[in-house]
Amino acid sequence: MAEKIAGTEIERLIQLLARLPGLGPRSARRAALHLIRKREELLGPLAAAMQVAHERIMVCEVCGNIDTRSPCTICADPRRDHSIMIIVETVADLWALERASAMRAPYHVLGGSLSPLDGIGPDQLNIASLPERLANSPTREIILALNATVDGQTTAHYITDLVSHLPVKVTRLAHGVPVGGELDYLDDGTLSAALRQRTAF
Amino acid sequence: MAEKIAGTEIERLIQLLARLPGLGPRSARRAALHLIRKREELLGPLAAAMQVAHERIMVCEVCGNIDTRSPCTICADPRRDHSIMIIVETVADLWALERASAMRAPYHVLGGSLSPLDGIGPDQLNIASLPERLANSPTREIILALNATVDGQTTAHYITDLVSHLPVKVTRLAHGVPVGGELDYLDDGTLSAALRQRTAF
Repeated sequence: MAEKIAGTEIERLIQLLARLPGLGPRSARRAALHLIRKREELLGPLAAAMQVAHERIMVCEVCGNIDTRSPCTICADPRRDHSIMIIVETVADLWALERASAMRAPYHVLGGSLSPLDGIGPDQLNIASLPERLANSPTREIILALNATVDGQTTAHYITDLVSHLPVKVTRLAHGVPVGGELDYLDDGTLSAALRQRTAF
Repeated sequence: MAEKIAGTEIERLIQLLARLPGLGPRSARRAALHLIRKREELLGPLAAAMQVAHERIMVCEVCGNIDTRSPCTICADPRRDHSIMIIVETVADLWALERASAMRAPYHVLGGSLSPLDGIGPDQLNIASLPERLANSPTREIILALNATVDGQTTAHYITDLVSHLPVKVTRLAHGVPVGGELDYLDDGTLSAALRQRTAF
């Protein structure tokens, strides 16, 4: 595309940028031009940040989070409530919960959800280590913060079975009306759940 | 956002990615996670490609294109028709014309269009060098491949005046129906222009 125009360097940059989620060939070209225009403020720092990330980011061997240390900052944080463990599917979900700042507890990142149709079984996820991790920790409750999808719920049931022999309470996120949500636009399942799990006002 | 979760390295990567056009905070987080997942196939190569771009890409001192050499690959290409020069606003426009492969001629990249309202005058653009460049080149025709906007047309008139003392023919891109376009969806101005500039069939 840009190969005959300008050395292969720009073409290669565009091709790699186009592999980022959310960027197609056109936006990758725009991004490349933007980077080259903002050479000192953006291109240089971003190249350096990526290099640092490439060299230093690792997966936490305790919880599956990503960080530049293992155990990760969260696992190593003594101020967190280690009697609770939040089970999430992905690091993105962990970040979402951290942004909500609702609970300061360590996590266990599964790396996805069980999906027999896609060939994703327990062996493809960070699940096998969970019982042993729980047995060797002060955890008294695990919160299943999994997606409210078929795969997420399949995973929830699997984990509940897996830890049933341990003295650990298993809870899951409440279903209900999203804050700011309008009833008229909610599906029946959510409305039913919100009614069943109504709280005192 | 991610600062308390995982060292500042990931947070910094996300913040820089969010400054790319087309990526907001959420898609920057997705992109960062994608990069970290594809560490060897994507993160490493992209970091290296950005480093190379940062070190080696320069603006061609002849035409204003970007390349790893100056004069750029296009300016230095003896197989191009140097009796023609195509004037474009941006490097993105140059790339678009190169993809169309319709004409093999050198370019002159203005770096934008005249826009008095935005404070962009001739001094902010790569315009002043144009008469001298034309005088010292075998150019017999310049093609104004500028946007069909008010600013683009203002720029076209300015350039026409600027080179009026030179023995150079000034042409511009045809207006008309886009290939694949449907008449019903075209604006009046385009339809009028397409009628006026009708060609033999």
